[in-house]
Parts: sequence; C-alpha cells; structure tokens
Amino acid sequence: MRTSFFTDHYELTMLQAALASGAAHRRSFFEAFSRRLPDGRRYGVVAGTGRLLEGLADFHFGDDELRYLKDHKVVNDETLKYLENFKFTGSITGYAEGELYFPNSPLLMVESTFAEACVIETYLLSILNHDSAIASAASRMIASAANRPCIEMGSRRTHEESAVAAARAAVIAGFTATSNLEAGARYGLQTLGTSAHSFTLLHDTERAAFQAQVDSLGRGTTLLVDTYDVEAGVRTAVDVAGPELGGVRLDSGDLVQQAGWVRKLLDDLGNWNTKITVTSDLDEYAIAALASAPVDAYGVGTALVTGSGHPTASMVYKLVSRQNDAGDWVSVAKAAANKASVGGRKFAVRQLNERGRAVAEVVSTAPYSTGEPERDLMVPLVIDGQVDASYTGAEGVAKAVARHHASIQEMPGEARKLQRGEPVIPTIMVRG
Amino acid sequence: MRTSFFTDHYELTMLQAALASGAAHRRSFFEAFSRRLPDGRRYGVVAGTGRLLEGLADFHFGDDELRYLKDHKVVNDETLKYLENFKFTGSITGYAEGELYFPNSPLLMVESTFAEACVIETYLLSILNHDSAIASAASRMIASAANRPCIEMGSRRTHEESAVAAARAAVIAGFTATSNLEAGARYGLQTLGTSAHSFTLLHDTERAAFQAQVDSLGRGTTLLVDTYDVEAGVRTAVDVAGPELGGVRLDSGDLVQQAGWVRKLLDDLGNWNTKITVTSDLDEYAIAALASAPVDAYGVGTALVTGSGHPTASMVYKLVSRQNDAGDWVSVAKAAANKASVGGRKFAVRQLNERGRAVAEVVSTAPYSTGEPERDLMVPLVIDGQVDASYTGAEGVAKAVARHHASIQEMPGEARKLQRGEPVIPTIMVRG
Repeated sequence: MRTSFFTDHYELTMLQAALASGAAHRRSFFEAFSRRLPDGRRYGVVAGTGRLLEGLADFHFGDDELRYLKDHKVVNDETLKYLENFKFTGSITGYAEGELYFPNSPLLMVESTFAEACVIETYLLSILNHDSAIASAASRMIASAANRPCIEMGSRRTHEESAVAAARAAVIAGFTATSNLEAGARYGLQTLGTSAHSFTLLHDTERAAFQAQVDSLGRGTTLLVDTYDVEAGVRTAVDVAGPELGGVRLDSGDLVQQAGWVRKLLDDLGNWNTKITVTSDLDEYAIAALASAPVDAYGVGTALVTGSGHPTASMVYKLVSRQNDAGDWVSVAKAAANKASVGGRKFAVRQLNERGRAVAEVVSTAPYSTGEPERDLMVPLVIDGQVDASYTGAEGVAKAVARHHASIQEMPGEARKLQRGEPVIPTIMVRG
Repeated sequence: MRTSFFTDHYELTMLQAALASGAAHRRSFFEAFSRRLPDGRRYGVVAGTGRLLEGLADFHFGDDELRYLKDHKVVNDETLKYLENFKFTGSITGYAEGELYFPNSPLLMVESTFAEACVIETYLLSILNHDSAIASAASRMIASAANRPCIEMGSRRTHEESAVAAARAAVIAGFTATSNLEAGARYGLQTLGTSAHSFTLLHDTERAAFQAQVDSLGRGTTLLVDTYDVEAGVRTAVDVAGPELGGVRLDSGDLVQQAGWVRKLLDDLGNWNTKITVTSDLDEYAIAALASAPVDAYGVGTALVTGSGHPTASMVYKLVSRQNDAGDWVSVAKAAANKASVGGRKFAVRQLNERGRAVAEVVSTAPYSTGEPERDLMVPLVIDGQVDASYTGAEGVAKAVARHHASIQEMPGEARKLQRGEPVIPTIMVRG
C-alpha cells in the first residue's frame, strides 16, 4: 500500500510552483508542534511516530499515482518527473514515541529540501494528530485505573483503520490488551474477548449459552451476565462453570453499585477468584468513579477511540527556517493575526530537579543547557533518509510503552489529576 | 487488502462456541440502528454503505490470518476450518447511502446464519459509525452554507484512512470537492488546493511567492494573503495577477469583518471576479455567522473530520430474531437495565403528507402501510451474498449525493435549523 496519496492536493501544486521558481530545492526546517493542549489537560502523549517511520518507506509515487496526477492535470510534467523519483532523503529529529509533550514542544523537526518536507506534510500530520489524541486520552484512563488493567474495545466506534492505530496508541499509553485482531497481528499486541449479548440471545436459554461457552472456551472464560436479570445471570454462571469461572462481565446499569453486590454474591457462592470486568461507556471519569468498587478490569470503547472529547491533537507543521540563494539560514514565521509562531530551528530539553522530577520544558532556537539536571528530548529518528528501525514495528511499540511509563513517572503527581488545569510543567522559550 | 481482521477477538470466540453448540448455523436477523441522535441534532445521515459493500468482497481469511489465529490460539481447529471457506452468503436490506435516519431507524437488516452475521459485526459497525458521523455533520454545514460551495480540507486532522472516508462522506452530504488525493482517485471526487503559508515563507518576499505561484499555476489560482499583513497581501496579489486573479484565501483573524473589507478592496482595485475563500477552523455555526459576509467558498477541516463534536454515530448491531431447532423464528432482545431494545425483524417507511413532505418514520415488526403517501426505506443491498454493485464505487457515491439531496428536500424546513432540538420527524414503532 502506497502512502503518498494520503496527501492534500495543494502540497503538490505548491511543489510545482516551487520547482518552477527554483525555491523547491532550498534546504528547510519544518517543525511539528501544538500551540496548546486540549482545554484543561495537563499533558499530551506523542504517538504515531513508529507508524510514520514505517509509512515513509512506502511513500513514493507509482504508475497509478502518476497517471492520476497527469490525467487530472493536478500538476505539470516537470513536477511529475520530480515525483517519479520521490523518496524522503532528509532527516527527522524529535520526541520519541510515548514521550509526554506540552504547548510548543517541538515534536518533530524535519530537515530536507522544501520539496521533500512539503510533500510529506499531510501524511505526517494525519498520523501524529490522530494517534497522539488517542494516546493522550488513554494515558489519563490508565492514571484513573491505578493498577487495574484497561482493555481497548473501541474498534466498532471508529473507522476500521483508525481502530488499529487507536489500539496501538492505547497500548503505548498503558493499556494491557485490545479486542482488535488486526492490531494484534500488525503490532504484536495481546488480543482479548469472549462473547456478546447476541451469543446469549442466540441460544434457547442463558444457561444453554453459558454451557456452550464454557464447554468450548473453558471454565476460565468470562461470561456476560447482564442479558436478562443480573443476579440470575451470576448464579447461572457459577452453577455452570463452578468455582473456576474466570470472570463475569457487566455492560449496563449502575456499575458501582452492581459491582459491589455481584462481588459479594460471587464470594458467597465460593467464587473468590472469579474476576469482574466492566465495560459500559467508560471514560477516565467513570473509571475514577469505580475506584472503590470491586472491579478487576476495565474495557474501554467509544471514549478511547474518540480521544475522550478531543479526537484530534491540533498539531501543526510549519516552515520555521530555510536557506536563501546564498545558502544562509533564514528564520521565518507567519506574522498575521491569531496564528503567529516562533521562527527558527528548535531544540528541547526537559529540566529536572535533584530528585529527577520534571520542572520545565525548555525550548530554544539554539542548543541550550539549563545548567540543572536535564534530559535531551530531541532524538534522531531519520538520518539522511535512513529510518531508525528500532522505533518501528513491534519493537517500537514495546519501547514506546516503557518510555511513556518512565515519562509519566518523571512528572509531578498533579499530572495524574483529572480536574481541568494548566499544563503540569511550564514551557519556557529561550530565543537565540 | 483483506478486511476480515478489522474484527474484534470476541466475534471469533463466540463463533467457536456457537459452532460447538450447533447454534452457529441458526438463521438470524441482526439489526443496525441507533437509539438516539447526537444531543440536539434534528437528523442523521447514513453513510459508509458503499464502502461496506465494497469491503465484503475482500472479507475472507487467507493464510496469514489463519496462521495468526492458530499460532495465537484465538480459536480452535474446527473454527479455523469454518473460517477457511468464509464468505458472506446472506442478505442485507436497509437504508440506502445518503438517506436520512432517526432514532431507531432500522438502518441495516442482516439475514444469514448467526455465524456469518457475527463475524462481520465489527467491520460493519466501524464503517457505519464513522462515515455516518461525518456525513451527519457535513450535511449541517451544507445547510448553513446555503448555496455557497464547501470544500473538505480536514485530512491532516484525522487518521490517514479516515480522511479518505471522511472526504467521501462529506461529498455525499453535499461538499463540492476535497483536498484529499486518495479520495479523489478512489471515488472519483473533485480535488482542489493551491498553496499554504509555507510557500510564501519559502520565498524571499510575498511578491516573489505570488509571482512564482501565478507563473506556474496561472492567474486563475487562489493566493493565500494572510501570511503577513492582509491588506498588503491583497494589494500585492492583485498587482501580480491583475484583474483575472481567481481568488484569495483568508485563514485567520475575524473572518466576517475581514471578508467585508477585503471584498471592498478587491472591488476598488477592479477585481470584481476574484473570489474569497475562507478556511479558519470553520464549523456549521461559523459558516452560519458568515452568511451575510461576501464569501464565495468555505474550506472546512477539523470540525468536519471529527463530526463537529460527535465523532461517532452510536450505532449498534443487535440480534433481533433467530430460528430455533424447529426452524421457527423467535424474536429476541436484551432485557437488562438501560439498554433494552425491541426484538424482531424490522421494516420501515417514511410517511409523507400530500405535498410530499416527511411526516414520520414508521418502523414496524411486520410489513406495514400507513395508508398515507409513504416511501419504503428498506432496499436490497446484498441478496444471497451478491452485492448490488450500483451502490459501490464512484457510481454509488454519485447516487448517494443525489439521494441525500432528495431526502433533505423531503424534510420540513426545521431540519435545517442549527439550534438544538428534537428529531425533525418522530419515529413511530408499530409492533406485530
């Protein structure tokens, strides 16, 4: 699957005009960043980097794409000629996947000709904006769940390919598993699931359904007990599966109250090891409300795959520096109205206190040290077109999981607060 | 690309248990519907049907998928054997793409063995939920824009494949064109775009950038005039391109006020035919606020691809009827708590008044006529596994565009109101 057509028409018309003027070959720095976090959020989570690096390998224009561009007169012959041999040969440094970010964190710095950086813009932003929105929401859910496992189950609520990316982003932020088989196959994620209400309704009685499930999937399976009367459902489940019943799932009603009496009923019946999974329209707030309820695992769907109110991360990609005809670097920035930004190549370190806790995000337009403990946030992801493969595939996901966990641990405790508030550390911009 | 793995793990474990119990082969009806519209919306728009029908052709399990399922012990050998030959051989009737829908409209009725209907569940819902959410938001934007063209430009704000589906859904709801090249190529949509701020910043001066763009793309191009000072930008644009300048684009600031004086300035300079396109974070409300401003076209991004606050359509897919061992049909429905639904196969007509205006959505559990003017909403989409190809591809999109337009025209005028309110026509449920 070629990735080059996940691109806006204007990237190629700009390319055409810049090839004609000669400016297309000027070396440039583009910066991906977000001016703000979603309202009230304390931090964001970078995700999608691995997918982007994987997709760059397939970002070229084949016969089908070139024919389309020619037939539909999107660009002229000179531009087609350029695109025939297109390959990203530049360098990308930036925040590694799983890392936290704040307003104006320079998430990616892309250094290449204008032409190359321009052509990959839409694709790069699509991935970063989507995956980071999901990971940012997922991370808050994990914080709310404390040490209870969260399972991603939102595939049916979002585009079929977004679902795969969402499962991946959720796992990076700390989710234990996903229901999505394609995500399991593509990224080596654990997949989980047992049955739905339709399975119970298919059989003549709830007992017949439970018996069929236990016979086929074993006593360790999780039975969905709320198709009819929950109490009767729990009793039938225990009757059919005995004390080895793996779990029951509750998918409706007042979960806090229900989890309480279901736990008591299970214990009374001798099923001390049978776990309770809850799954009804959970978000980070509902999960927090269940903290004191005897719940063993959370299945999260809609709120996860839609970013819990913030389905996109509002990241932008701006030309911040480019060479002139003499080969000198010139910082550039849009000046007009409400979208002004800071020109120039960016660097970033996370300043820490003596106990290793984050104090500030320090962004600068030249290499800069705070003189305090600090950690460089800009890592090389692509060098002269060569992707660092350790950020891709299943290995990339596994590393991002660890990195996210470490990055969260480094934050002040307020990072985990659900209440609306300011970013948990300030972004300090050092110019020059 | 196989579509079968866009599936939740539990669809296949349910299948395994149902194959073992023998119930997997019971004939079943599954219904796709939504219990409610997003809060305050007057109607929803069905979209994704064509994509679903296209994807069914690739919904089978190849060697890679079967090996994954075996290696990861997702299902047993009997189930693998069944999946080896999987092909959807059932029938689907329902609302054609572009049609409006209301709470409890039976959008799709899937008739097949339980096994077949179960295995396609996740994929079917992913597509319907995503695409309908986008089309529903897009339709409101079109209503706000009155007869001014809307252009879809949101690719960078959503997953790269969602972007393609979103462009398609937007066009079905009335958008004129999209920026997304893949959507253009895949569905025969018109694509548009000229340049971004980076193109201006790349050149030594705004004038040099405009000159390069006009030289390469022609005087009919649209110049982006708000990189620096807007007034100076407009004057330079006219100076470079002359009276034939196709358009200027405004992407920041107070668009209502700005569009006013930019129009006056263009007219004063003799550029009566130069159009104004606005593109800064528009949604249906911002578009409505621009109604009296001299704007010629709207470019819509983030709000469109995220469903303007409602990124998913909350559609569910429920087993509503199935045969028992004697071959009799049994209506079934979940009873517990807050998710009760109505069992039985559904039929639906839209009741009209004598002037052809919609009066009610009449849903029934047996064929039913209101005795008034009415229109059958349930059309055959798949018959015994054979997809009606007229609903797919570019033809399917073109028909859906016309259908949506007609379906909107049929509604009372209140359908086009932006204010929060009740569904514009009631859903009447007729049982038996």
